[in-house]
Amino acid sequence: MNPTAKRVLERDVRGVARACRLVDDRVDGYIEMLKDLYPHTGKAWVVGVTGNPGAGKSTLTDRLVAYWRGEGKRVGVVAVDPTSPFSGGAILGDRIRMQRHFEDPDVFIRSLATRGALGGLSHSAMDTVRILDAWGADVVLVETVGVGQDELEITRAAHSTLVVMAPGLGDGIQAIKAGILEIADVFAVNKADRDGADATVRDLELMVALGKGVAAATVGHSVSMSGEGAMGPGWEPPIVRSVATQNQGVDAVAHRLAEHYVWLRSSAEGKLRIEARLRELMYNEMRQALVDAAVRDIHDDIERAIHEVARRETDPYTASERLVTLFKQGRKTGQREP
Amino acid sequence: MNPTAKRVLERDVRGVARACRLVDDRVDGYIEMLKDLYPHTGKAWVVGVTGNPGAGKSTLTDRLVAYWRGEGKRVGVVAVDPTSPFSGGAILGDRIRMQRHFEDPDVFIRSLATRGALGGLSHSAMDTVRILDAWGADVVLVETVGVGQDELEITRAAHSTLVVMAPGLGDGIQAIKAGILEIADVFAVNKADRDGADATVRDLELMVALGKGVAAATVGHSVSMSGEGAMGPGWEPPIVRSVATQNQGVDAVAHRLAEHYVWLRSSAEGKLRIEARLRELMYNEMRQALVDAAVRDIHDDIERAIHEVARRETDPYTASERLVTLFKQGRKTGQREP
Repeated sequence: MNPTAKRVLERDVRGVARACRLVDDRVDGYIEMLKDLYPHTGKAWVVGVTGNPGAGKSTLTDRLVAYWRGEGKRVGVVAVDPTSPFSGGAILGDRIRMQRHFEDPDVFIRSLATRGALGGLSHSAMDTVRILDAWGADVVLVETVGVGQDELEITRAAHSTLVVMAPGLGDGIQAIKAGILEIADVFAVNKADRDGADATVRDLELMVALGKGVAAATVGHSVSMSGEGAMGPGWEPPIVRSVATQNQGVDAVAHRLAEHYVWLRSSAEGKLRIEARLRELMYNEMRQALVDAAVRDIHDDIERAIHEVARRETDPYTASERLVTLFKQGRKTGQREP
Repeated sequence: MNPTAKRVLERDVRGVARACRLVDDRVDGYIEMLKDLYPHTGKAWVVGVTGNPGAGKSTLTDRLVAYWRGEGKRVGVVAVDPTSPFSGGAILGDRIRMQRHFEDPDVFIRSLATRGALGGLSHSAMDTVRILDAWGADVVLVETVGVGQDELEITRAAHSTLVVMAPGLGDGIQAIKAGILEIADVFAVNKADRDGADATVRDLELMVALGKGVAAATVGHSVSMSGEGAMGPGWEPPIVRSVATQNQGVDAVAHRLAEHYVWLRSSAEGKLRIEARLRELMYNEMRQALVDAAVRDIHDDIERAIHEVARRETDPYTASERLVTLFKQGRKTGQREP
C-alpha cells in the first residue's frame, strides 16, 4: 500500500492534501497511489456547480456545503473555476468567505489552477475527486466556470450538475448557452431578488421547453458521448430561485439535486448516463496515459520534431504521424527527469 | 494536391467553408488536405480576443474586422466562444449584427461549437486558423471566452491577445483572473462610458504592476510552457478604453495590437514566445494524433476496458496502462467506420 494512500484511507487530512499535491504535480508514483485508492471509491455523490462569473456560484456552493454539513455529510470541494474565491482566492487573497469551512475537519477544499499543455485540467480534477471519494466524502462539489471544453468534460463527469444563472448577466437569452443546456440537471436562478429574475426564469423555461426538441440536433456529438443527455426523456431540469447571500432557496436547490441523484440511480436512462460518464472518464484517462508515455519514451524525438517544424522542414501533421510511429516502435530516445 | 486544398488556395470561399467542415467533422483525408495547405501558411497575424461574457467582446471584434477591412486587409474570424453571436447565433438566431461581414468576400467567419470527448476544441481551432491563413487572411481573429483550459491554449497559440473587460462585471478585482493576466498582450476596458470604468482601469493597472513581480511564481508551469509569458520584461500590456458600440477607441485598440506584433517579431523575447507558441501547437497536434491512432487501432480493447472498469474488475489507471501497452504492440483489434 502506497503510504499516502494509507493516510487518505485513515482520513488524515494532511495526507489528503499531500495526495492532491502528488496528483497536481504528477509526482512519480502518483498513479500507484491512485490504484490503491480506487477500490475505496465509488461512494461519493459528485455534484458539478457551474455558471458564469458573477452569478454567485461560489456563495451558493458555500451555502450548499453548510447545508450538507447540517445533514452530517462529509463534503469535498474541488474548485476549478479560476474566478472562484476558492481557487482565485489562492492568488488574490479572497478566501475569507470560505474560512469557516477550511476549519471544519469534515470539509476538504482543493483548488486547481490552470495547467500547461501537458497536464490536462479535467484529468487532475477527476483524480482529485477520487481522492476525496476515497477519503470518505459523501458529496464532492466540483465548481467550474462551465464554458470551456475541459469544464464541460468535468461537469459531464459529475452525477448531478447545478447551473447557476443570475438576472442581468449578459443579454438574457444569449447568456444561456448551448453547452449549458446540455449539462444542466438543475438550474438555480440566483440573486432572485434582483430586477430581471422573472425574465431569466422565463427565458430558462423557454429554453428547457425548446431544448427537449432541439438538444439532440444542436449538440449532436456531445449528446451521443454522454448518453441521452440531460434533456432526454425522464428528467426535465427544474428551475429554482435562490438568494444565496440570504441563504434563501438553498434547501430547495439541495432537494432538487438529491431528487436528480435518486432518479439517476433508479431509472434506465440514469443508468445509461452513469455508463456514459464512465466512458468519458476512461477516455480522459487513456489520453493522459498516452501523452505521458510519449513524453517519457520519445522526448528527444518530440523536441527534434518541434525544431524541424520551426525551420519549416516539415509540417506539424507529418511530424506528429512520425512521432506516433516512433512511439509505437517503442523507441527510447531520452528519459526525462522525474 | 487535395482538391479542397486547391480550392482554398484559389481563394474559393465555398472551398474554404468545405475545408473547415472537413476539419470539424474530421472526415477521412482531412489531414492530407492540411498537409497540402501547410506550406502556404505562416503569413497571417493571429489575434486572440477573449474576456467574460457581457464584456462586449463580439461587438469589439466586429469593429476590429471593419477597421482592418478599412486598411484593405483580408480578415478571418474563428469564434470559439459559445456565448458569441458569431457562434451562439448559429443556434439562437442572433447573427444579424455580423451580417455585413458575412456578405464581404474578404471576410471569412467560422464558428466552432463545443465538442465531445474525442475532438479537442483547441485542435479544431488551430486547424481552422491554418485554413484561413492559407486562404490568404492577413489577420485571423480568434474569439474565445478565455476561462477554460482549451481557451487558454487557443489564446496562447495566438500572436497577440486582446483581453476585453467591462466595468461592473463580477466583483472588480476578482473578475481579473490569474489566467487572463498570463495571456493579455493588450487590455480593452470596453463600455468605458459606464460607471466604474475608472475603477476597472485602476484595478487592471494594479494587477499589471503586481503581475510583473508575481506572474512567474503563481502560474509557474504555464509560463514555462509559453516562454517568458506576457508579463515578462519588454512588453507591458497597455490598457485602452473603448466603447465598441459607438466605435470609440477601436483604432487605439488596433494600434496597440499592431505595436505588439511588431515587438513580437523584432525582440529576442518575442522570438522566444513564437517558439513557445509552436511548441504548444506541436504538443496539441501530437496528443490528437495519439488518440486518433489509439481509437483506430485498439477500439475494441478500449471498449473492453471500459466494461471491465464498470464491473470494477480493474481500475482505470491499470486499464489505461494496459491500453497504452496494447497500442504500442501495434494490435489491431477493430477498425472503426470512417
